[in-house]
Parts: sequence; structure tokens; C-alpha cells
Amino acid sequence: MEMLSIHLERNQETPLYEQLYLYIKKEIAIGNITFGERLPSKRKLANFLSISQNTVETAYEQLVAEGYVESIPRKGYYVLAYEDLEYVRQEVKKDIKVNKNEEQIIYNFHPGWVDTEHFPFERWRKYAKQIMANENHHYLLLGDRQGEYDLRSEISQYLFQARGVHCHPNQIIIGAGLEILLQQLIMLLDKRTIYGVEDPGYHVISHILKKFQNEVFPLEVDEEGVNVKEIEAGNIDVVYVTPSHHFPYGSILSVNRRIKLLNWASAKENRYIIEDDYDSEFRYSGKSIPSLQSMDQNGKVIYLGTFSKALMPSIRISYMVLPDRLIKKYTTELNFYQCSVSRLDQVLLTEFMRNREFEKHLNRMRKIYRRKLELVLNLFKPYENQITVFGAHSGFHLVLAVNNGMNEEELVERALNARLKVYPVSNYSMIKRVDLPPKIVIGFAGIREADLQKAMTMLLNCWGIFEK
Amino acid sequence: MEMLSIHLERNQETPLYEQLYLYIKKEIAIGNITFGERLPSKRKLANFLSISQNTVETAYEQLVAEGYVESIPRKGYYVLAYEDLEYVRQEVKKDIKVNKNEEQIIYNFHPGWVDTEHFPFERWRKYAKQIMANENHHYLLLGDRQGEYDLRSEISQYLFQARGVHCHPNQIIIGAGLEILLQQLIMLLDKRTIYGVEDPGYHVISHILKKFQNEVFPLEVDEEGVNVKEIEAGNIDVVYVTPSHHFPYGSILSVNRRIKLLNWASAKENRYIIEDDYDSEFRYSGKSIPSLQSMDQNGKVIYLGTFSKALMPSIRISYMVLPDRLIKKYTTELNFYQCSVSRLDQVLLTEFMRNREFEKHLNRMRKIYRRKLELVLNLFKPYENQITVFGAHSGFHLVLAVNNGMNEEELVERALNARLKVYPVSNYSMIKRVDLPPKIVIGFAGIREADLQKAMTMLLNCWGIFEK
Repeated sequence: MEMLSIHLERNQETPLYEQLYLYIKKEIAIGNITFGERLPSKRKLANFLSISQNTVETAYEQLVAEGYVESIPRKGYYVLAYEDLEYVRQEVKKDIKVNKNEEQIIYNFHPGWVDTEHFPFERWRKYAKQIMANENHHYLLLGDRQGEYDLRSEISQYLFQARGVHCHPNQIIIGAGLEILLQQLIMLLDKRTIYGVEDPGYHVISHILKKFQNEVFPLEVDEEGVNVKEIEAGNIDVVYVTPSHHFPYGSILSVNRRIKLLNWASAKENRYIIEDDYDSEFRYSGKSIPSLQSMDQNGKVIYLGTFSKALMPSIRISYMVLPDRLIKKYTTELNFYQCSVSRLDQVLLTEFMRNREFEKHLNRMRKIYRRKLELVLNLFKPYENQITVFGAHSGFHLVLAVNNGMNEEELVERALNARLKVYPVSNYSMIKRVDLPPKIVIGFAGIREADLQKAMTMLLNCWGIFEK
Repeated sequence: MEMLSIHLERNQETPLYEQLYLYIKKEIAIGNITFGERLPSKRKLANFLSISQNTVETAYEQLVAEGYVESIPRKGYYVLAYEDLEYVRQEVKKDIKVNKNEEQIIYNFHPGWVDTEHFPFERWRKYAKQIMANENHHYLLLGDRQGEYDLRSEISQYLFQARGVHCHPNQIIIGAGLEILLQQLIMLLDKRTIYGVEDPGYHVISHILKKFQNEVFPLEVDEEGVNVKEIEAGNIDVVYVTPSHHFPYGSILSVNRRIKLLNWASAKENRYIIEDDYDSEFRYSGKSIPSLQSMDQNGKVIYLGTFSKALMPSIRISYMVLPDRLIKKYTTELNFYQCSVSRLDQVLLTEFMRNREFEKHLNRMRKIYRRKLELVLNLFKPYENQITVFGAHSGFHLVLAVNNGMNEEELVERALNARLKVYPVSNYSMIKRVDLPPKIVIGFAGIREADLQKAMTMLLNCWGIFEK
């Protein structure tokens, strides 16, 4: 055995004995040292490598302890013969190709992006400092499986005042994102449940449902929201809707349809309505539309909300309000799950809400987003014959029906060439629909206010829509 | 319509018009104001309630906007007739019974609890302050779906040095807990996959698998780890094992069995080994046992790790290392999932690791936990005839085989009466096994060092085991 290739480096973090041990182990693993071979005597190797005999001994003894080598008294150290391992020469770890970065996008009109310039970092940091203190060491341990009670209490109060949602904190489950809560809900409901999902709609929902092998039916959406006749006519058990502000179209589910939907749900035991109230904090004209849950007298609405829009998408704090009978089921059947949100983050958010920072932040951001929206609407006004705007009453995005002779693909392509990223409505649809004129989703909230005019002008220009 | 019951409160946060609007809406919802009824004239109501007419008008107009009421010129405001809603008188929201708190437990020997007294809050806070700064506003938006690249890079380096795990950062997925990563893995693998799980073992695994309706078989465990003959003989595709430190028994999977297991996995395309290395940072005698993944030449080991023991359970940061072929599948099929861990937390942890705080913390905690373990082992020494200790080489818990004539239930009961909480091995078993003598899991890491002697003595005493 040569060992000529070994390079021991003093002054390194890894001790010499460990470097030696690792080296020999690797040589055994890749077959350079074969079974039954005798390792060099400690004295000889120590001499050869100019290290102490103790160092060699430590390395050898570790190999013995782990079963790679055996020590035969007065004979030496022998590599153990054990069952044949398939010897595939250890490939040099090739770099797995990193996904080629998207071309440098100048403006990304992602519907989920929020304004990041105005986040109150100083305030957030103030509470973080208070919480990360030694007296709070108990927060290091796992807390309530449904999430911290105090946070659920703040959320319950907020929901009642802002959305008319009636619930006790114990009906709330906190989770690190909509996907996680939805998965728990799917596990809670019968596995044969048939789902109806708005189409176009929030596509992640259908992806998840299909992973669980539930049947999913697309439900049409018009200017009054989801088509309830389809639900009544179909064989659906649970519907997923965005009644306050349809994603992506923006329509509000009319009062009449709300009542029809609630009646439909009440008519059978296993029917439920999942209400995703994803951006309800940001309504710009008139007062908020009350939640569907606030009208529900029969415990049929499962209410989903999130802090992704109100605070930041990356915080990963969302919540689900379950009706009484489902909460009972949850605490029995899914009680092995730990809460997926960091406890310190939950406590931080609780303090932020309790001290009315959340309220102040919402008020502030609402003004900022309203300004952005008005700016954008004004920019589009001169082009009313070519661009129809949908959903301009709340939220972070608009849908543009673009009537310039281009199809959806061309619109997206042209934008990309101008280094702008827009989102065709077909991204959000299970059915291959062809809208005429084609519809494009553009988020405006994430674009800096100072850049909005430029960004929108670039977009219009790349679509061949110029000022006359 | 009476409206005698309305109480308007000035000097409240909710504006008067809103209080009025809410009141009327509720009255409509519960049927006190029936459809077709005419609301009082604005002037009359304003007079009656001593508020301005503007206030009444704002409230009325909101009700009109929402479709509850219509305004007929020169006639008045009429509650709209719409489809019959089932009138169930709105129940006063009863408090859902809060789970009765466990009796005041003095000492909880939970195997998952960590020492919380020595967490370096000051250091953690220092990095938190740096990160929560305005120049980092881009961290508010969602990041890489697999988790921040820099964090995955730190983890990859740490894993190689500490566990011999070979991987590129792009093979790592970060998630808010083992349950979340495991669910993704289950979705990634074929839905007909048959799983083998150590028994006794980490019970959450079997719970989750059953929710996904996968077949799960219990695998026996002895002093050499999981019984590989069972795996070879059975019809299993994927095994879940804790080879470095079996949970709960503590046995280390022998080198021979490791090789057999790896050979078994290599023999068929769809076989995998899930290695859960949950507390590998804390080995107290000898050097760490290298991971199974480090011996895997064929991309058959899926490696799971977590910061729950090394840092804190409540931080909810875990990771999964997928072999190349599974990573490709992941990026194609599960690319609609967002990372479930807060981005700010990921960045904080990256800085903590990069600045070697994690290393320092581990070294410090290893000494502290070793001291606790030695203390506990010394306390048990005099009772060797009645108490046999298993797993005393690493981790946060021990298994005690208690030979005092009591069965498992009595041991747990007696402890509870003395206000101590211990964990019978049967909690972690799918099969109803009766161990003789009965085996109890006790975590020692979460008990304060100063309390260890008292806690253990109380435990021994309540089991009738006294100093002779």
C-alpha cells in the first residue's frame, strides 16, 4: 500500500489523526486498499509522514472501533474481510447543473410580490430583540401543535373586526404556508372527497390535490365569481373559492351566489366550502366585503388566511379556521403534527399585533398600494380600446385583456424580450382555454412606485401600444 | 323595527357608522329585521341615536353596496328580498373546551427536549439585528424553493466534515420539520411503495405513511440495530432507519448490517433507505459513527437531518439530502412548493454557521450533555440489578429496562403520581409488544443540570428503588 498520495496539513482545523483516518477509510472504500491487506506498522508510517506514533495509533484505533480494520496482537492491523460491497469507483461529485438563471428580468410583474421598500424593519427588529432574550428560553422548546395560543387569539380578534369571521382561537391552526395547511385539511377530510376548484384559479391547489389523488373538477368563473350552478349540478363535495377577490380575475362573489353556495353546502353532511381570503386586507374602494364565513350559520366554511400579503411572503405564516366539528376531528386524528412555524417568529408576530404595529402597517401599506393602483389605472386609461382592466378594486394584481391582435404566447414572449415578466391566465387554468382577447395577469404591488410609470410604459410599448 | 337594543359607543376604535352598519347587518342575518322591511329614515334614526345624519347615511350606503339593502328614491331603504337563507339563530360562540392541562408535571423526561439554559441568545440576537435591516428588504420575498442556497451550502460542508455525507448543495431540500420533508418524499416516490419502519421507532413516521395510505411494515430491532434479514425476506421497497443511534433503543447499526442493507437497496431500482440522523451531533464516547450515506456508492440513501437537537426544536429547520436521480424528479414534479422555512430565519442560521457560532455552540453543548449523561449514569450505577441502561453513548435519552416487578403501565402511572412524566417504549411501537422487563424512555437533556440528581432520585423512589 503506497500512501504516497496522502497530504497531511498541519495548522488545519481537522486534527492530523482525523485526516489520516479519513484518508485510509476512503482508500478502503474505493478499493485502493483491499481486504486482508496489512496497514503499515505504526512506527513506519509515523516516520514516513513525520508525525507522532500516537497520531497513527489514534487513527488506527478509530478504524478498529468502526469495524474497518482489526488489530491482531504482535502481527499488525489488517483491513477486515467482509461481504463484498459493489465497488463502483466513487465518482468525483459533479456539480449538478444549476438551473440556468432567468434572463436578467428588469421588471417582474409577479402577482404575489409585495412592496418591500416600506417594511418597518426597525419596528420588527425592536420586537425581535425583546423576544430573543434569556428569560424566554422556554420558547426554544416546541409549543402548542396548533400554534401559540396568544397568536391565535390575536388572529381571532383581527379576523372578527376585519372580516366578520366568528371563531374561537381554538378553531385556528397555524402553518408555514397554504400548501401545508391544505395538505392537513385533505388528510382530515374523507379520502374519496371530490373537489371543485375555480378555473382559472390558484393552480397550486389542484397540483396538491392531484398528488393526493383526489378528483378535482374545474369550476367556471365569471364577473359574479364562481359559477354556483355548476357546483349544484355536479357531484362535488368540497369547493375551493376566493370569494372576496377572485384569483386571478378579481371578481367578487355576489351576495346571491354566496347564499346559494352556503345553502348547497348545508344540504349534505360532508360538504364544505374552503374560502381562501388571501389578500382581503387590501381593498381600495368602499369597505371590505365581509367574509363568506361571517355568513355561515352551519359550520360549513373553512377559512384560510395568510400574512404573506399583509407582511411578507417569506415569513411563512398562514392560518386556517376550522368549523367546530372539524376541529374535534383534527385534535384526534392529526395530533401527531408539530406546528410548522418557528415559535420565536410566532411570538414576534403576536407582539407586533398586540402593540398595534400590524394595524399601523396595514393602514400605511393600503395607502401605498392604492396610490400604485391609481397610477397604473391612469396609465392604462388612454388605451381603453385595446386594454380592458379587471379586478381593480383590491389586491396586488390586475388582469389585462389585451386586444392588439397578439395571442397570449406572443404577449408573454414580447414582454420577455423587453425583459419584463408577465403571467398569462392560462398558467392558472387546468383546462386549455383560449381567451379572446387573451388575458394577462400583472402584479403591480412589487414594482417600486418610482418605476411604475416606466415599467408599464415599457410593457405597453413592447405590445405595440403607444400613445397616439 | 325597534333598534332599541343598539348601543353606540363613542370614543371607541370602531367608528360610529361602522358600529351601526354592523348592528343592522347582524339584525338582518339573525332575522330580527325581515326582508322587505323598511329601515328608519336617516333623519329619524340620526335623531333617535343622537348622531349625525351623515353617519347614518354612510352606514346605509355600505349596506346598499353589499347588497343587503336597496335604496328606492323618495321612498327609503328596504331590506332586500333574496333567497331564503336557513335561519338558524346565531349561537353565542361557546368556548370550545380547552384541553385540560396536564397535571402540573415537575419533571418531564421528554426525549425530544433540549437544554434551554445555555442557548446563546445574545449571539443569535446579534445576527438577527444585522439581518433585519432595510438593505435586506429583498428577503421579504420568497426565495429558492429548495431553501436558500447559502444555507444549503453551509449544511453541505457541515455534513461532509461531521458525517461524511457527500452531496452538492443542490441535493438538499430545506423544510419546516421532518413531517413536511417526509410528506414531500412520499409524494415523490411511487404511490405503491411499501415501507419498512423500525419498531419500536419514531412513531410519527408510521402515522404519516398511513395518512397517505402506504403499506407500512414494522421491522425488528436488536442490539445491532434493525434486523436486515427481515428486510431482505420481505416485500419492502423503502426502509426508514436511524442507524447512528436507534430511536429509542440507542443501538448502532453494525458495519456488517450496513453493508447488507446497502446491497439490498442496490439490488432493485425502486429501493431506497431513508436515514434519519436526528441527533448525530451528540456522541459522547469515541468519534462519530459515519453516516450510512457516506458508505453509499449507488445513490440509494436519502439522508434526513435537523437543527432541532443541535439548536432548538422550535426553530423548525430540517433538511433532506436526495440522491441525484430523486433530485431531478423533485425539481420537475414538486416544483410548485415554496420553501416552508422563513427566509429571514434561513439567512440568520447561515450567518450563525458561517461565523462558526454553530460549531462553538455544538462543542459547548456536547460537553454539557456529556456531563448530564455521566451524572445520570452514576446515579443509576448502584441499581444495576434492577435497572439496565441502553443507548448511553449519544443523544438526549436513555432506555431503562426496569426490573422491579412492575409492568410498563404501573411504571408510567407511579411516575405520574409523583408528577414525573416518562415515556413507555410501547408509545413508539405499532405492534403491541410486551417487553420483559418493561422498557421506559427517559430524556435527560431537558432537565436542568442542578435538578438532575433530584429528578432521577424521585423517579427511582416512586418505582420503589431505594438506596440500600
